[in-house]
Amino acid sequence: MDRDQAEELRALQDTLFFIGGKWRIPVINALCNGHRRFREIERSIPGITTRMLSKELKEMEMNKLVKRTVYDDTPVLVEYEPTTYCRTFGKIIGEMIAWGREHRKEVTKD
Amino acid sequence: MDRDQAEELRALQDTLFFIGGKWRIPVINALCNGHRRFREIERSIPGITTRMLSKELKEMEMNKLVKRTVYDDTPVLVEYEPTTYCRTFGKIIGEMIAWGREHRKEVTKD
Repeated sequence: MDRDQAEELRALQDTLFFIGGKWRIPVINALCNGHRRFREIERSIPGITTRMLSKELKEMEMNKLVKRTVYDDTPVLVEYEPTTYCRTFGKIIGEMIAWGREHRKEVTKD
Repeated sequence: MDRDQAEELRALQDTLFFIGGKWRIPVINALCNGHRRFREIERSIPGITTRMLSKELKEMEMNKLVKRTVYDDTPVLVEYEPTTYCRTFGKIIGEMIAWGREHRKEVTKD
C-alpha cells in the first residue's frame, strides 16, 4: 500500500485544528442531537459556561458549521441549526463515543 | 432507538480528555506508523518541539499508551512502542484523516 505519511499527518492536523478546544465537539454533538435553543444546548452540556458556548457558536457560525436564525417574535426566538458540513463530523464523533465507552468498561472492570 | 444522550456525552468527553492537546494524536499516529526512536518521531511531526514530544511520551508512558525500552548499548538505545491500547485509537485517527482530506478538497475547490 502506497501511503504518504506527510499527507496523512497534514489531513490529521487540519482536522485537529478544526475541532480544537474541549467544547467544539460536544457542541456539534448537541446540535446534531436536535438541540436548537441556546439554553437547551447549554443545559445538555454539563460544565460549559454561557460565555464559552456563546463564543463557540459565534466561531461555528463564521466557519459555516451552524446556521443562526432569528425569529421576530416576542420574545425574540433564536435557533441554531447544524449545517450539512457540521454533520460531516458524525463518524468521528461516533468513533469517539465508541472509544469512550470501551475505555469506561476497561477502567471499571477491576 | 433508545439513546442516552448524557451517557453518550460522557463517553465523548472521556475520549476528548484522553486525546486532549494538539500533539497526542499526531504522536500516536507516528508510533502506529512504525516510528520508534525519539528523533525519528520528532522528525515525522513538523512543528513539535523536543520539549513537547518528551512531555507527551512521558505522559503516554504513564497512561500505558507507550512502552519505553532502553537497550544497554553504546550509545544507549531507547525505543518507544505503541501498546495494544494505543492502537485502539486507529479508527478515530482514520476518520480524522478522511475528514481532513475531504476538507482540503472542499477548501481548494474554488
